[in-house]
Amino acid sequence: MQFVNRYRDYVVINPLMRGGILPGEVQEQLCKEGWLEVGYAVCHDCIEGRSSLITKPPVRKFLKQVAQFFGGDEAEHTFGCRAAQYVVMKTIAEYAKEEKLEPVVVTDPNSHYSTNIAAEMVGLRVVEPPHTGYPEYRVTVEAYREKIEEVGKPALVVATHADPYFGNLEPVEELGKLCEELEVPFMVNAAYTAGVAPVNMKRMRADFLTVSAHKSMASLAPLGFVVTTYEWSRRAFAASKSQAEWTGRVFGKKIPNVFGCSVGGVPLISAMLSFDYVKARVKRWEDELKKTNDFVERLEDIGEGDIMLLGERPKRHHLLHFETPLFWEISKKHKRKGFFLAEEMLKRRIVGLHKGLSKHIKLSVYGLGEEEIERVLAAFEEIASLRDKL
Amino acid sequence: MQFVNRYRDYVVINPLMRGGILPGEVQEQLCKEGWLEVGYAVCHDCIEGRSSLITKPPVRKFLKQVAQFFGGDEAEHTFGCRAAQYVVMKTIAEYAKEEKLEPVVVTDPNSHYSTNIAAEMVGLRVVEPPHTGYPEYRVTVEAYREKIEEVGKPALVVATHADPYFGNLEPVEELGKLCEELEVPFMVNAAYTAGVAPVNMKRMRADFLTVSAHKSMASLAPLGFVVTTYEWSRRAFAASKSQAEWTGRVFGKKIPNVFGCSVGGVPLISAMLSFDYVKARVKRWEDELKKTNDFVERLEDIGEGDIMLLGERPKRHHLLHFETPLFWEISKKHKRKGFFLAEEMLKRRIVGLHKGLSKHIKLSVYGLGEEEIERVLAAFEEIASLRDKL
Repeated sequence: MQFVNRYRDYVVINPLMRGGILPGEVQEQLCKEGWLEVGYAVCHDCIEGRSSLITKPPVRKFLKQVAQFFGGDEAEHTFGCRAAQYVVMKTIAEYAKEEKLEPVVVTDPNSHYSTNIAAEMVGLRVVEPPHTGYPEYRVTVEAYREKIEEVGKPALVVATHADPYFGNLEPVEELGKLCEELEVPFMVNAAYTAGVAPVNMKRMRADFLTVSAHKSMASLAPLGFVVTTYEWSRRAFAASKSQAEWTGRVFGKKIPNVFGCSVGGVPLISAMLSFDYVKARVKRWEDELKKTNDFVERLEDIGEGDIMLLGERPKRHHLLHFETPLFWEISKKHKRKGFFLAEEMLKRRIVGLHKGLSKHIKLSVYGLGEEEIERVLAAFEEIASLRDKL
Repeated sequence: MQFVNRYRDYVVINPLMRGGILPGEVQEQLCKEGWLEVGYAVCHDCIEGRSSLITKPPVRKFLKQVAQFFGGDEAEHTFGCRAAQYVVMKTIAEYAKEEKLEPVVVTDPNSHYSTNIAAEMVGLRVVEPPHTGYPEYRVTVEAYREKIEEVGKPALVVATHADPYFGNLEPVEELGKLCEELEVPFMVNAAYTAGVAPVNMKRMRADFLTVSAHKSMASLAPLGFVVTTYEWSRRAFAASKSQAEWTGRVFGKKIPNVFGCSVGGVPLISAMLSFDYVKARVKRWEDELKKTNDFVERLEDIGEGDIMLLGERPKRHHLLHFETPLFWEISKKHKRKGFFLAEEMLKRRIVGLHKGLSKHIKLSVYGLGEEEIERVLAAFEEIASLRDKL
């Protein structure tokens, strides 16, 4: 089976990918150091039978640092943020059973689907506070409070730190206070923030933080982290209790919630090699936000009233969602219909707009250089000019 | 965080790694084609929201081919074989509930721990037929039959095609017949065979086949496959049924048993690029077995009676387990104690023996060239000669 990377050297504006792009040096190290030869070279010096305990390379130390960096006590690496959320949901499902709580999770209406699927996997039901609707789609602490009171005592409250639809930042600190007051466990899904923006789960009073390395920590997929407190780590990272009947085998080092051991492989190596870079770039978050807000203004200018940002303004996250009646109008006359927009961008070696959509677009310029941003804006400008030509 | 690949260009004899080593050309393609830039470049052209449905690159077609190659109808990629086994166990746990079967799995006593952990994750209890003990540790169909009858009607029977302790091939075809006769679902864990040896689940009458790409399909970790029949695929790969309360969002393309979507990332790209190579090498399995059995003879010769193969003989799999009183004897006098053996090998740029063990060793020469095998044997010979020197 042979195929090429169609988008090699393209400018990537997919908002889910921008935070995951590996620094050139890390890509080079992976290749030159031979990390791609054995699919899980990280395991060569595994002594205890669990990747998170490996000391050469320093996985154990790395996980400690990841936990600290995000204001938590303990961290395990997982197969992506979805698997991190599974760890939380599984822990909570058991907790709810023990404590005789309703198996219900209150989740923001802008949650990523993986939150809902993780809940479904363990039999937890998801209820949602409403958002404020068009054009901002904010979620308020009051809406959460009402929904929580309606449930009584939910097993878990979830907030998506920056949501995947509009890139709104949720009021996580106030929500943390509310959950503390109501004594409900609180999970923050930081898939879109942890690794690009400053994130501290202590300040959020969060019990669990879920992180995506390939979305926001400049890492290969699939990799994520679940970070938690000492207290919850005893449940979330509890060792296997099963015993095989005849052999009597036990698996005391294995953590069932992460499939015993989460392997890691090259994605884990990449995240470790990228970590210094990630720590450094988080300090430049305010610059990135300025860049993002400038971009919003300039793209809206190109639209002359027919390209409008959705979600909160000014932006406090790099994920951008625009309503684009301008492109929708063009699509109705264009022979490629709704596909014209993504295709026109591809012609200009810019990848990341969802194919087929022209009424709305989602994109990000996080981490792009000035020249690349100019290329993106010039592309939009050229495409916008089709309105007068068709 | 900076660290190097300590074992770059070493000869790898870790039996869990030999089948996972990427061909040089694939490593080169990953680097030169820029597949490491975006952690999940496989998703650039995702239209339907699930990696297994992506047509560019041809993931969907690849999964069809994987299913066919292993004699199955449908396949999904997973986060390693452990996650594939989770899919099966979750499916079976629900089936057992519906059919009012005992939540019990009959698993061979030489199973990989991930089988037991996957069962534990979904609340299934594991019982084991006995093996025949030292020195062969075989599992017989009769032992399975007795254990199954003792349970009554278990929810699932599991056989580890080649086991991770001794590399014995289990009597999977006879077991398949037995399961068919008793109408019990049958899972074969082919983590150590699928991708190196011919594997056909139809011939085994298996309902589920679980596969490890990074163990046996020349792929980066973490990646695996769960292959099944049309019939079981409806349960195992059932789409999400949950609905978020207020927004009414549904996730109809997502498969909860694989976290909605299993992403894939660079491991999936690597497996696709390696697939032709894998298909070709499986045809050379008999040559590999001959090489393996020749190696056994020569290593035993070096031991002069104090290095003995455990498990079945002749070998029908490349995983080798030797009892090594010779090295155990040396370890008692050596200043590095049990560590001397792995360390002496490392000095000779051979990696893969478990550090600290000298009484038993596990290794493989699968896929090694003649020269490399001579190097491994020469190393053992030199180390064996320490007996007369200490």
